[in-house]
Amino acid sequence: MKILVVGASGTIGQAIVNELSPRHEIVKVGKTSGDFQVDITRIDSVKQLFERVGKVDAIISAAGNLHFGPLAEMTPELYNIGLQDKLMGQVNLALVGQHYLNDGGSITLTGGILAEQPVRFGSGASMVNSALEGFVLGAAIELPRGIRINVVSPNVLQESMGAYGPYFRGFEAVPVARVALAYSRSVEGAQTGQVYRVF
Amino acid sequence: MKILVVGASGTIGQAIVNELSPRHEIVKVGKTSGDFQVDITRIDSVKQLFERVGKVDAIISAAGNLHFGPLAEMTPELYNIGLQDKLMGQVNLALVGQHYLNDGGSITLTGGILAEQPVRFGSGASMVNSALEGFVLGAAIELPRGIRINVVSPNVLQESMGAYGPYFRGFEAVPVARVALAYSRSVEGAQTGQVYRVF
Repeated sequence: MKILVVGASGTIGQAIVNELSPRHEIVKVGKTSGDFQVDITRIDSVKQLFERVGKVDAIISAAGNLHFGPLAEMTPELYNIGLQDKLMGQVNLALVGQHYLNDGGSITLTGGILAEQPVRFGSGASMVNSALEGFVLGAAIELPRGIRINVVSPNVLQESMGAYGPYFRGFEAVPVARVALAYSRSVEGAQTGQVYRVF
Repeated sequence: MKILVVGASGTIGQAIVNELSPRHEIVKVGKTSGDFQVDITRIDSVKQLFERVGKVDAIISAAGNLHFGPLAEMTPELYNIGLQDKLMGQVNLALVGQHYLNDGGSITLTGGILAEQPVRFGSGASMVNSALEGFVLGAAIELPRGIRINVVSPNVLQESMGAYGPYFRGFEAVPVARVALAYSRSVEGAQTGQVYRVF
């Protein structure tokens, strides 16, 4: 398969490439690195990406930012960072990408455990990760030509505990190589509308 | 209790007022009707509302719009209708309202069944209703002074089948009076971070 990986240089992205590259052709995409560059928050940038890459068999997104902060200090603008970047950025990839997928192709997005298990300062992440799960549920039943869509919901990564550990005390961090398996399962399996939890 | 009901003139809002007004003081709020007016999509309008109303014991929101449309025709702008109105409008009420709630007060928002049971043309609704559930989950653990937050997730209403029936074929529509009970349960009960499903 020809597989587009957006966010290929990130911790999860690199693990996805390691998992899938031995048996597939990987096109690496990043904001500033990789074979192609894209700003997922701008749908015209996403359109330009696919015009240049052409048809693919799978689209994987491991990209997107959001804001962590105390509820008492959150603002519409701070929630909108996550809504326009991690949520709509990945939705933009799905909206445009569906037209560039071969029959039976797949879209795999990245959510996270906070959709189900909240932590302090994580209301924006719980919102955005839940929204991604809802979008995938809704989109799965409308995609044509056997195209599938799923979302991977990882726990905090062992590799990210330096940065995120204080937010995730007591969480059983998972190795990123285990998270990468969920993307393989989504791309190389046959299900749609699924949340692949890695926790 | 002094209870603020935003969206009081709507189908659900009226049923909430009918359910709660025999035993509570209700302040009705609407976009253009009611005791006070508010544009929930503008946080400055929400701030002005609470400055005028003052302290309350409960905030109920049964307000918010979103766009229904085929996935193939959805755009970032069409998803953002729901993200900025039904989602962030209600989040704005929670963000500002938390500071005007008496100790032990509650916030009750309105989601919907499409968070769990998708229908054609409903990917925006599944996204927004799921996002509301995620926000409530995350916010519940950070609210101070015993303040609680829940979301009611109604099925399609019997009273709305004229407009929404074609989208919800086979759904077991519920009477709005039954939906109103869930708001009573949220306001007059003691739970937080809950999704009260009425389906």
